[in-house]
Amino acid sequence: MRNQSPIANDVSTRQETNAYAVERLFSPIDLCWHEASPRERGPILAGSQPGRNTIGVHAGAFAPYRAIATVSGALSASHSPALGNTRPSVNIGPFPQWSDPGKIVALDPWGHRVVDDFAAEIASGRKVQPTIAVTDGRLMMPEIANALRARRLVADGSIVDSLGGVRVTKIAIEPVWWLPGIAERLNITETALRRALVEASGGMYPDLVARPEFKAFLPPIGGTSVYLFGDPVLGNTDTKIACRFHDECNGSDVFGSDMCTCRSYLGFAAEECVRTAQQNGLGIIAYNRKEGRALGEVVKYLVYNARRNAQSGDRAVDYFSRTEEVAGVSDMRCQELAVDVLHWLGVTRVDAWISMSNHKREAVVSAGIEIVKQVELPSNLIGSGALVEISAKKASGYFTETGA
Amino acid sequence: MRNQSPIANDVSTRQETNAYAVERLFSPIDLCWHEASPRERGPILAGSQPGRNTIGVHAGAFAPYRAIATVSGALSASHSPALGNTRPSVNIGPFPQWSDPGKIVALDPWGHRVVDDFAAEIASGRKVQPTIAVTDGRLMMPEIANALRARRLVADGSIVDSLGGVRVTKIAIEPVWWLPGIAERLNITETALRRALVEASGGMYPDLVARPEFKAFLPPIGGTSVYLFGDPVLGNTDTKIACRFHDECNGSDVFGSDMCTCRSYLGFAAEECVRTAQQNGLGIIAYNRKEGRALGEVVKYLVYNARRNAQSGDRAVDYFSRTEEVAGVSDMRCQELAVDVLHWLGVTRVDAWISMSNHKREAVVSAGIEIVKQVELPSNLIGSGALVEISAKKASGYFTETGA
Repeated sequence: MRNQSPIANDVSTRQETNAYAVERLFSPIDLCWHEASPRERGPILAGSQPGRNTIGVHAGAFAPYRAIATVSGALSASHSPALGNTRPSVNIGPFPQWSDPGKIVALDPWGHRVVDDFAAEIASGRKVQPTIAVTDGRLMMPEIANALRARRLVADGSIVDSLGGVRVTKIAIEPVWWLPGIAERLNITETALRRALVEASGGMYPDLVARPEFKAFLPPIGGTSVYLFGDPVLGNTDTKIACRFHDECNGSDVFGSDMCTCRSYLGFAAEECVRTAQQNGLGIIAYNRKEGRALGEVVKYLVYNARRNAQSGDRAVDYFSRTEEVAGVSDMRCQELAVDVLHWLGVTRVDAWISMSNHKREAVVSAGIEIVKQVELPSNLIGSGALVEISAKKASGYFTETGA
Repeated sequence: MRNQSPIANDVSTRQETNAYAVERLFSPIDLCWHEASPRERGPILAGSQPGRNTIGVHAGAFAPYRAIATVSGALSASHSPALGNTRPSVNIGPFPQWSDPGKIVALDPWGHRVVDDFAAEIASGRKVQPTIAVTDGRLMMPEIANALRARRLVADGSIVDSLGGVRVTKIAIEPVWWLPGIAERLNITETALRRALVEASGGMYPDLVARPEFKAFLPPIGGTSVYLFGDPVLGNTDTKIACRFHDECNGSDVFGSDMCTCRSYLGFAAEECVRTAQQNGLGIIAYNRKEGRALGEVVKYLVYNARRNAQSGDRAVDYFSRTEEVAGVSDMRCQELAVDVLHWLGVTRVDAWISMSNHKREAVVSAGIEIVKQVELPSNLIGSGALVEISAKKASGYFTETGA
């Protein structure tokens, strides 16, 4: 956290004087992304506040709704969030990964701690908001209740209760992109990344190009929800870890659409996470809002129709090319950015990686995190409607023990 | 669809000549939003294409991922979508509501038909993409299987099969905002709306202010997924209709979090929709991506902590004010815009409105759609963890038969 401009330096030498409080409010604060302490790193200052260092706003994916709430008078633009009682329900970090250059670039590792780390800035009137929230919860998933009935799981009164309720830590994470780090991760220049962000969006945030001194960006995209099963003892290499990265598929996850294996894999992963937690390990599900491989649901349904209406029929061999024909690309999820959450949780090894995706696996391994065992979706959980999808994925390089 | 600029008029008089094809590609096309035919209305031309008439891009909520796909070389910026096999699986509309001024302003009623309505423009090289996709599906929801087991529902082999699979029409809708109409709906000026959209987002799409001639906007926010239960015979006032507007609550909808009634109400609504379909009616669930009352999941979890950590305890009387203290407003969902989907489906009366929300009800009734009966969530489906929420909502004006 450096005050670099002459004005800022000037102000900082006089900062004990109350008369200069307003002026101090306007001093810019630069982010030093990989510093090992939050105060050296500096706070994310977003929106249009004086001294901002970040492009975009918090919960940017809902900004148009915020505009309506503001212009209709329901929300005051000068509202100051009362954060005193919102602290994380459990402590997470800091871990060495938080300041290891290049390891975390798509979220703010200090994002859940701002109410304490930046209490002085908040008190002075700066707007510093959490980008991560940590709370407790109890989940009622039909798959867990079924596993109890089938005696694959046993209620222990702590992790799983007799009704099938599962005690978890729930974490909501808003994306925060450190642009130089994102560019480095993707092997492109920061300038090319900034230009592409403006061009691919039809002119969203021209500041990305016009204001290169702002290195952080709050992209208006969906974030990540993390569920921790078992006591969240993190950063301990003795802890056995089961983990699934699950990418949103609303139709299957919520409504049980039978065209894919998404809900089945999610339910199976939850059961594996509970089992691991009951063996004193930790289960992790990271749910990423990337509907339809980050192509969106309209494209997904167009592709469903294209598959069914194809003259050659709906064949596994055409599965990915149908998406490419409609969308120009078969997948935009960018798993390279999804791994940061494991670094943030201090994870260095995943004992049971509950996924068959080669993209996800490669991203995790490339990040230096060991995968001990990859866990395939049991074939009895693959419905007949999802056979084309799973066959296509296996043919394209998805992991399978049987090599089928 | 008018070519208004002198250049455009000049070009259109020569449009038979191939030599002017390139020039024709650049002619602007204005939207005449409430025209009764798609060709009079005109196509949504988004992105940075020549002759564009709309601010933003398709699937704007995923634009940053598209940027990465483009700059990394996976996606060609000149890709031309192959839409020939993507047509809607069932016909929807047109209905008189589509051209009734003011009735539909938050989606493009012609958005599922572009491959035919604008075939000429697409063939000429313009980028016209569907904003709505319609397909068929089969849902496997545990609540329906439970209803079969409990004999509240009976499998009929058509709407519900013996395994509990439910045949549906699935529709994905991307938001398209007609800015003059949105402003009118919200009783604000278009200028104030445009300014607020830029300001509340920290400078997203300055074109909203700089280019007032572009009246349409593709906001980078989540859209709506519609599930139709039963034969989609629309626009027929004899058809009995059951309907729920369900606003996304990922933690409950997917993971069964017990802090709220969301999943319970969704499962109950699905059962009601199936029952209505089996009586030759139509069930409608519109699932709106507005996590945490459009405040986002980080704010939601912060509020959970604020409720639990409050000195006075987690009380129904404080439920809404806890959110206001953190977020400045208790709800940003703007139900006024959610009703357009009913106009789009040709619905003029809902026989069973499966919701207790006064906001949703008022929005529907204000839009001139009759609600015959409002259907409360049965008390046996309200878990103990959700009692604070449901008590607070009832006290604030939520519908309840018992007045409790």
